[in-house]
Amino acid sequence: MEQIPLPAKERLLYLMRVLEKSGMNPVTSTQVEALTGWSSHTIRKDISYLGGDCDGSAIGSSSGYHPAILAPAIKKALGLDRRRRFCVVGLGRLGSAYLNFRGFELEEFELIAGFDTNVNRVEIVRSSVPLYPAYKMAEVIHRFAIELALLCVPEEAAQAAVEKLIAAGIRGIVNFAPVALRVSPEIVIRNVYVVDALRAVAVRMT
Amino acid sequence: MEQIPLPAKERLLYLMRVLEKSGMNPVTSTQVEALTGWSSHTIRKDISYLGGDCDGSAIGSSSGYHPAILAPAIKKALGLDRRRRFCVVGLGRLGSAYLNFRGFELEEFELIAGFDTNVNRVEIVRSSVPLYPAYKMAEVIHRFAIELALLCVPEEAAQAAVEKLIAAGIRGIVNFAPVALRVSPEIVIRNVYVVDALRAVAVRMT
Repeated sequence: MEQIPLPAKERLLYLMRVLEKSGMNPVTSTQVEALTGWSSHTIRKDISYLGGDCDGSAIGSSSGYHPAILAPAIKKALGLDRRRRFCVVGLGRLGSAYLNFRGFELEEFELIAGFDTNVNRVEIVRSSVPLYPAYKMAEVIHRFAIELALLCVPEEAAQAAVEKLIAAGIRGIVNFAPVALRVSPEIVIRNVYVVDALRAVAVRMT
Repeated sequence: MEQIPLPAKERLLYLMRVLEKSGMNPVTSTQVEALTGWSSHTIRKDISYLGGDCDGSAIGSSSGYHPAILAPAIKKALGLDRRRRFCVVGLGRLGSAYLNFRGFELEEFELIAGFDTNVNRVEIVRSSVPLYPAYKMAEVIHRFAIELALLCVPEEAAQAAVEKLIAAGIRGIVNFAPVALRVSPEIVIRNVYVVDALRAVAVRMT
C-alpha cells in the first residue's frame, strides 16, 4: 500500500470521527464537504490512499460514503485496527479524570496503569485501573507492553516525567502540560492544551 | 488589514505557541520549519497577513523571528489582545480539573463561573471561582458578559447543555464530550477528545 502522507492521515482520522458521529448513512460528498470544510478533490484523494480492498464502488462516491465500510477501512489503513495499551502519568485532577473516563473502553486504546511520584496519592486515588508509584514505571511499562502515555503532570514536572517515560520505552505521548517537551525526533508528542483550544475558538468568532 | 483565512489563523496560533514555548530568541526560519513542519513560503505568507505595523524588518526573516515582537503581533492580528471571559459547564472530574487549573491566569482568558445541574455538586466542589446551579446559567452569563464555555458534561447531557448555553448568548464552545453537537453555523465549536489525540499519536508511530 502507498505510504500515506501525514496531513492525509490527519484528515482521514478526522473524517473517520465525523463519519462515526454523523449518524448519517450514507453521507453524501456534499455533506462531507460541509462537515469537514475540505474540497471533494482532497477527500477523494485521501480516500484513494486506502488502497485496493476499499475501492470507490464499495466505499461509495457519487452515491455518498458509507460509514460502516469507510470507518473500518480508515482504521485498518492507519494501523488503528489493533488495541494499544497506554498509561496515565500524574494523578492530579486531570489525570484522575482520565483514569475514570469511560470512553476508552469503546475505542482501540486500553488503559493499563496510572503513575504518580506521590505515593500517598497512588494509595488514595480511586480507580478501576492499577496505580503505581513512579519509580515502578519502567518495570510496569515493560511488563504490560504499554506503548503510549497521557502526561497529566504539572508544567514543572513534565520534562523529567517525559524522560522517564522514554527511558521506559514509551514512544508516543499526549501532553496536557503547557510546555514544549524536548525529545528526540523519533518520539511522537501531541500537545493538548485547553488555552489553545479556547484561542482556536476565539479567533473563529472574530 | 487583509482578512486572514482560517487555515492561516490556525497556523499563526500554533506558531505563536511554538515561539512562546521555544525559549529561543531569535528563532531562525530553519528552526521554525523544523518545529512546525511548514515550508518557509507558507510561514512568510502567513506572517504577511499581520499587516503593515509588523513588517518583515521588525519581525525578522533572514535573521530569524523574534518571539517578543512576533507573538504580540499575532495576538493582535487575531483579536486575542483582549481578555475574554469563559465558564466551565459540568463539574465532574474533568470540569473540576479545569476549575482549578492555574494556566488561565497567565493567558487572555478569564474563568468567571462554573455550572452544574446537580445542586449538591455545586455546593461540594472546591473552587476559587463562583459555582452556580445550571438554572442560573442565562442570568450569570448575561450579568458577567461571559463569551465562551468549556463543556465538560457527560456525552448524554452535551446536546441539552449546549442548547442552554447558546440560548444564554454563548457563541464559542470547547467541547470535551465525544459527541457531534448540532448547532447553527454561527456557533463556533472546538472538539477536544482525548481518544482522538491518542489516535493522532498512534498513526504517527506506525
